[in-house]
Formats: sequence, structure tokens, C-alpha cells
Amino acid sequence: MPSLGAPAEVIETFLASAHGIDVAAWLADLSPPDALQHLSNMELPRRVEVFGFLPLNIQVDFAAAFAPAELADIVTHMDADDRVDLFNGLSESEQQTLMRNLAQAERDDIRRLAGHAEGTAGAIMTTDYATLRAEMTAQEAIAELRRAAPEKETIYRSYVLDDERRLIGSVRLHELILAADDIPIGAIMNDLPVSVPVETDQEKVAKTIERYDLLALPVVDENDRLVGIVTHDDAADAMQEETTEDFQRLSTVLPFTQSLREAGIGVLYSKRIVWLVLLVFGNLFSGAGIAYFEDTILAYVALVFFLPLLIDSSGNAGSQSATLMVRALATGDVALKDWRDLILREMLIATALGVTMAAVVFPLGLLRGGSEIALVVGATMFLVVIVGSLVGMSLPFLLSRLRLDPATASGPLVTTISDAVGVVVYFSIATLLLTL
Amino acid sequence: MPSLGAPAEVIETFLASAHGIDVAAWLADLSPPDALQHLSNMELPRRVEVFGFLPLNIQVDFAAAFAPAELADIVTHMDADDRVDLFNGLSESEQQTLMRNLAQAERDDIRRLAGHAEGTAGAIMTTDYATLRAEMTAQEAIAELRRAAPEKETIYRSYVLDDERRLIGSVRLHELILAADDIPIGAIMNDLPVSVPVETDQEKVAKTIERYDLLALPVVDENDRLVGIVTHDDAADAMQEETTEDFQRLSTVLPFTQSLREAGIGVLYSKRIVWLVLLVFGNLFSGAGIAYFEDTILAYVALVFFLPLLIDSSGNAGSQSATLMVRALATGDVALKDWRDLILREMLIATALGVTMAAVVFPLGLLRGGSEIALVVGATMFLVVIVGSLVGMSLPFLLSRLRLDPATASGPLVTTISDAVGVVVYFSIATLLLTL
Repeated sequence: MPSLGAPAEVIETFLASAHGIDVAAWLADLSPPDALQHLSNMELPRRVEVFGFLPLNIQVDFAAAFAPAELADIVTHMDADDRVDLFNGLSESEQQTLMRNLAQAERDDIRRLAGHAEGTAGAIMTTDYATLRAEMTAQEAIAELRRAAPEKETIYRSYVLDDERRLIGSVRLHELILAADDIPIGAIMNDLPVSVPVETDQEKVAKTIERYDLLALPVVDENDRLVGIVTHDDAADAMQEETTEDFQRLSTVLPFTQSLREAGIGVLYSKRIVWLVLLVFGNLFSGAGIAYFEDTILAYVALVFFLPLLIDSSGNAGSQSATLMVRALATGDVALKDWRDLILREMLIATALGVTMAAVVFPLGLLRGGSEIALVVGATMFLVVIVGSLVGMSLPFLLSRLRLDPATASGPLVTTISDAVGVVVYFSIATLLLTL
Repeated sequence: MPSLGAPAEVIETFLASAHGIDVAAWLADLSPPDALQHLSNMELPRRVEVFGFLPLNIQVDFAAAFAPAELADIVTHMDADDRVDLFNGLSESEQQTLMRNLAQAERDDIRRLAGHAEGTAGAIMTTDYATLRAEMTAQEAIAELRRAAPEKETIYRSYVLDDERRLIGSVRLHELILAADDIPIGAIMNDLPVSVPVETDQEKVAKTIERYDLLALPVVDENDRLVGIVTHDDAADAMQEETTEDFQRLSTVLPFTQSLREAGIGVLYSKRIVWLVLLVFGNLFSGAGIAYFEDTILAYVALVFFLPLLIDSSGNAGSQSATLMVRALATGDVALKDWRDLILREMLIATALGVTMAAVVFPLGLLRGGSEIALVVGATMFLVVIVGSLVGMSLPFLLSRLRLDPATASGPLVTTISDAVGVVVYFSIATLLLTL
């Protein structure tokens, strides 16, 4: 991308010939008036292309700056799914002005798409797809696609509908091309294309597309009528969003869909503070444990030396198990039914980890507090690593079983539980062994 | 999918008509002899399709069970990228036997693909693509595609090569169909398709495909000659692998590429134990801090009550920042150059978080130890939340700057640093305020 101070002709060549998304990224870094000026200088098709690649919040800002007719021109030519996202971002009065300036076909299309709940197939589908009828010949079908193609986001697969617009098959472009001219579509179409209901969760949509390596997945209403398709790139975006949410949840941040760069201080504060505060109260359990054992602590203050170490090790082992499990559940690598096998394996692994960790801290205990402290610290380490691992592994399954997102609270709950268990185990063993 | 005890005809229908990946998933749960029996009963094309969808480790096991000629038959008809994965999974003697049974063309193709380093464009590309020449007419091009199509993984975009096999353009199938019959390909092709060198990191390949919404990305050698393409679905798989690695790294698990379900106890133990042990030594810093302040602790044992709480809060705030940043760097949402803006914003957010957290623990301090303890605990909380957040935010940037993976060690380093800082800050403030 050219630097902002590049010669005018370099910038001109870039604006005219670079990929739309690169131009959009370059414009997004300019001041809004400059960016708008460049946009207005472009021919309409180019302007629509570049505008469609701008981040949604910038699209919304710019929409307010355009004359109503100019905005309507752009919106008319945008992809159906992109324009409904823009529409949903506008204020109510902006929406009304825009709708008044659009033709009937676009108005209807936006209304059809705008009503679907976020996170469902309906919210990420597009109405730009090609349809055929079973009675058409291959030649007629190709002619039909030639006519309709420039409007359609993807024509590599066309959907075959019956009189009621019910989905009865699909045919790929290269199958059409390879077919004899006069063969009917009904004879070459694939009988039962995979499809999903319009209210399907977007994560499931993305997984279905990935599993079957689809370019697009048809979306049907309750009467099996085709209402849209989700293209593979939009599904990949949705999947990326879901994965980002898993990262957020695991690190005790409430999910938010804005870009981290664009998110405001207020948003980030409110998404982060909730679990931080809740965890304070979770920690009171550990605190209570400590209070209960105050006499032991006063008698053997060297025990405090090992407290953070033991608590952290238990939490680390737990967060390892929890994260591995959350991710494996998200990618479909493991399923709920695998629980029994996995917990058995985890017990073996956790035992091996616990033995190793105990062997590592034992000499530290010897150095710092003598053989009795070493014994207490080693035994505690062994136990808390096992407890942490098992809790970490089980929680995501449990949450999933309760139909909650397995990533929610797995991290913090694991830490809180292992902390409290760690404190009690540690000082109980110490009280038992040291005060005998 | 039918249950294992389903009537034979239900299973037969399923095996004959279900999607190959569903059949493969069903076979993978059977005993190997049963699965092999079902595979052998299928017609060759179906057998190849289903076999290609089996997990790699099962493919490798089954490969040993097939007669050499039968295996060669399957391998000959597999997708070029899948078969080289299988080839790389075989033992050296199995590889030699297989190669002896293959025709020259397949042998050469496997040799061409097998040499590329894991995690590069070369390792995930396929040689199944369609090529055209600029002098061909649209009609000749379509005839050529009709001839070659059944062999090619994707013919939606064909690549135009010059006499030296250098990539000079590309043309989409629907552009061919819309073009007049006698127009030369050179006149309708797109001049400069995005391409990547063969040693490009797979994460960059996936990001390029995503950015430009490509179905496939051409891969070229050092002389700009086309050597393969990476299809969008293989790129998505690679991206998913990289994301899983980020999850693993953040939770202090060394990256491994096997499925969690298939990974053995030894693998999981070795991937998990390294950081757990290293963190023990990291924790000695906190321990040393505690030892240094032993007198303060003996005088005010109530301070121990708040130790896990303060340490955990600092670590939690830090892991929030670190995770948000690691993920944003991975998706390209933020870049190294954004560091200055982001650290300023993080200071404001961390201050707000610190004030809130201090306000939450102050009354707990009052209840448990009186106003002086409350002051110490509140002030410490305020400071450690800020330190934790800033460390958490900066580490991924720093690691990235050092050309290390930002996810590596961010989690554990944040915890270790915030622990040590937390202990020192806590007991320093306590010593200062309480012993005056």
C-alpha cells in the first residue's frame, strides 16, 4: 500500500488497480473527509466494491455523510448480506430515509434478511444465489446463468427448486458444462443437498460447511423453501468470531464482537470487571481455609513460602486440561460421549504429572524447611495437581452437558476450585504431619 | 448415521448413498477388520472417496492391510494433497513398496509434493489444478477444461501459464462461460493473481485466502513458475490447527498437532510437564519475596488471608489482557505498530479495573483485619491489577517483536511476573504502613 505522502499518480494507480479490500484498508486509515473524497471520485461499481470492504462502523459513519440518492445507489449494488448488515447498523431514521430511496426489490430483500436473530444462519445468509428448475435443459440452464450471473455472489452451484420454491436438488457449474446440451437438469442434479433451517446456530452452519467442504450451504424455512445461502467465506468469518469468543471466555472476559482495536474503554472495562470481581468472592473460600489454619501457619511460617507455588501449579494443570478440552469440544474433536475414556486417561496423565511435580518440589522443601516440610509440600503437590487436572477436564463437559458454553467460566472456576482445595489439602496435611 | 446394530439394508443404503465423510466417520468407529471389509465391498471410486475422508492415522493402519496393488489403485485416484499426506505417514519400506506399484506420473507427483517442510504452503498445496494458455480461445479453453475437469480438485479458476510455466494470469469459469467463443484467454484473464512462494508459512497462506475471499491460492517457485494451489478448505484446516496451537500455548501446553482424542498419554504428559516444572522455578521468586518478609507475616498473619486473592486477581487481569492481545495479533485485528495507542488505552482500563477491585476488597480487609489491613489490601489490589494488565498486554507484543509466537509463554510469564510483583508490592506496603 502506498504511504500517505506518496506521489499523486502512485496513489491514483493504487486506487484504480489494487484489490478492493486493500483500497478499503488504506482508506480506513485516512481522515473521513479525505476517504470520502477518494470514494466519490471512483466509478460506481468500484465505489460499491471498496465501500463493501470497509469495516462496518466506518460504513455506518460514511452512510450519514452521503446524499440519500448516492447512498441508495451504493446500497442497491452491494451484496445482499453486506447491505443488510449496514442497514442494521443505521439509526431508525436513517433506515427509513434509505428505504424510501430504494426500489421495491431491494426494500423487500432487506426486510426479508433484516429480521433474523444474530448468530443464526438467517443473519449471515445472502439472497444472491442462482436457481434453476428441474425441467430446464442444460443448455437453457447455462443461458439462464449467463443472464443472471453478474448479480449472484456464487454461481458455482445452482439450486433446483420446485413450484413451491422447495429445494429439491443442486447442480454444479462444471456438471452443467460437462453435460449434453439437451439433458434435463432433473437428470443431472444431486438429489439431496445438505441444508439447514434458518434459525440454525452460526457455529453449526460453519461446522457443516467445513465438514462437507462446501462453497455454500442452502438455508430453508420451516416448509423447506429455499430462503438463502451461507457462503464459505461468511461462515469462516462467523467461525472466527466464535473462536475469539472462546478465547475471551477462557480468559474470563465476557464475549464481545467488536474488534479489539475499535472497542472503547467502557466496553472493555465492563467485559473484564465482572469475572474479576466474582473471583474475589470465589477466593474467599481459600481465605477461609487459611483463616482456619492460622495456628499452623504461625507455627510453621515456612509453609507460606510454598503457598503460591502449590496454588499456581494446581491452577496451571487445571487450566491445561480445561483449555485442551474446550478447544477439542469446539472443533468437534471430542464429544460428550467420550467423557468416560477421557477421564480415565486424564487420571493417568495427572498422576504422572503429580509425581513429577512432587519430585521437583521435594528438594525445595528440604532446602527451605527440612524433611517434614518437604514431605508436606511433596504430598500436597501430588494431590493438588491431580485434583486440578480432573476439575479442569470435567468442568467443560459438565457445562456442555448443562447446555452452557463449555468455555464459560471454565478458567475461573478451575482456578477458584483448585485454590480452595489446594489451601485445605495443604494445611490439613501440614497440621496432621507437623503437629503429631 | 445408523447404529451398529441397524438392519443390514439400512447400513447398505447408508454406505451407498451417504456423504463420504459421514461413511468414513462411521467406519472409523468399527473394528478395523469390519471397516476394511466394508471398504473392500465398495466400488473403487467410492472406496477412494471414503478412504480419503478417514483420519490419517487410520489411513496409515489400513494401508498396511491392503494388498500392494489394491493400495496403489486407491492412492492413484486420491487427491494429490491427501495422498502425499498418507505417503509421509508410511514407513520407509511401505513407501518403497507403494512407489514400485505406482505409475510414473503419480510417483513424480508424490516426489514433487513430499519434500516440503511442514507448516508451509508447499506442504498443504495440491497439484490438482487446471491450466490454460493465453493464446487459447474461450471455446478451446472450455473444451480443454471438459477434457481435464474430472481430474482437477477445482476448476472454478484456471491458471494461465506462459512457455516457462510462469503464472501470468487466471480466469474464472463463469468468465469463460460469459465470454464470446473466439475471444483469446489473454484478453479476458485477470492480470496479476495473488500468489505466494512455496515456502510461505501456512498461517500467512490462510490469512491471504481469507483476506481476498479466494477459493484457491496459487503457489509459485523462486522463478515464478506455478507449482501448486492451496484450496480454501485446506487453508481453513491449517488455520484451525494454528488456532488450536494458540490455545495450547496460552494454557502452557507445548503445541501438538494430533487430535486430543487420539493423542497418547506419553505425548500429553510430555507436552504438559515442561511448563509446569519451569513455572515452579518461576514461583521461587514469589517464594523469595515471602521469605524476605517473614517477620511482617508473623506479626500480621491476617495478611496471608489475602495473599491468594491478590495474586490471583493480578494474574487474572494479566491473562485477560494477554489473551485479548494474542488473539487480536493472530487475526490481524491489531498489528505491532498499534502498540503505543493500545498501551495508553490499557493504562486507562487497568486503572478503572484497579479502582473497582480496590473498592471491592477494602470492606473485606476491614472485616478481616481492621482499617490498616484494609488500606494495605486496597492499595496493593489497585497496583497489582495495573501491573498485571500492563505486563499481560505488553508481553505478546514483545514476543512478536522478537519474532517469537506471541502466544508462547505469555500466559505463564504473566502469572509468574504478576505473582512476584504482587508479593513484593503487598508486603512492602504492609511493612511500610503497619510497622510505622
